[in-house]
Amino acid sequence: MITPELLTKEAFAPFGEVLEATPDTAIEINSGFTTRFHQLAAVDADRAAISVFSGRRRPMEISMLECHPYGSQAFYPLGGGPWLAVVAAKPKPEACRAFMCGANQGLQYSRGTWHHPLLILEDTQDFLVIERLDPESNLEEVFFDEPVQMSV
Amino acid sequence: MITPELLTKEAFAPFGEVLEATPDTAIEINSGFTTRFHQLAAVDADRAAISVFSGRRRPMEISMLECHPYGSQAFYPLGGGPWLAVVAAKPKPEACRAFMCGANQGLQYSRGTWHHPLLILEDTQDFLVIERLDPESNLEEVFFDEPVQMSV
Repeated sequence: MITPELLTKEAFAPFGEVLEATPDTAIEINSGFTTRFHQLAAVDADRAAISVFSGRRRPMEISMLECHPYGSQAFYPLGGGPWLAVVAAKPKPEACRAFMCGANQGLQYSRGTWHHPLLILEDTQDFLVIERLDPESNLEEVFFDEPVQMSV
Repeated sequence: MITPELLTKEAFAPFGEVLEATPDTAIEINSGFTTRFHQLAAVDADRAAISVFSGRRRPMEISMLECHPYGSQAFYPLGGGPWLAVVAAKPKPEACRAFMCGANQGLQYSRGTWHHPLLILEDTQDFLVIERLDPESNLEEVFFDEPVQMSV
């Protein structure tokens, strides 16, 4: 059973970056009409592309993990409430950790970070995704013998 | 006086890409639990970074334009309603064109596209921004003698 932890920059650091507009990243630009929350993450890819992912609610169990060996992958929610991220230091059921992400928190999985595909808590939720161009050739998957349940 | 046009891929093509989840870009992934609106734009930068811009409403007049000669710059609204983009084929008042962007439309300015900084229609609106790393060294600005008014 996996119990979600609160998403913080420190807790998520082994797996990637939290994308969050916090005061320490704020710079005033555009004659004072815009606050830039500056460079929350650098994209790690030889070539990056922007997509939209529209997620649907699915059973709260983890039966596989995937990783992208050739580039980072970032998710930022386009409206909606909290959502979930599951990551692991190795692709094993016992290594899985879940993070509860806020409505104003995105995250970027580092190149090679094992993670579960999109997990949302509402019926549908959309995300902007920034990742390496041509993701088809940038995917590894590991399937578990038994799914791990999540307590949400 | 500039009158905003409707934002469409065709109309905006000389200036960059519209980021919009349209059916022609849809691919089902994640065992059918996610629709991927695939590669709405490729990022044009040797190295990219992700920031959040929090805009505030400003006077609806155009007194300058800027461009980023070394990389593309993409904006996607994080909630809120329609917003405005002003672009120009050359940095002259008479060349300015305005586009009314929907709540579910982002856009990417191509490398070198002249544009006005963030223009919103509500008191505040946030955007995810994907652009070249280190934007400080990637900015040209041209100031007009007289501001151009916008009819919104």
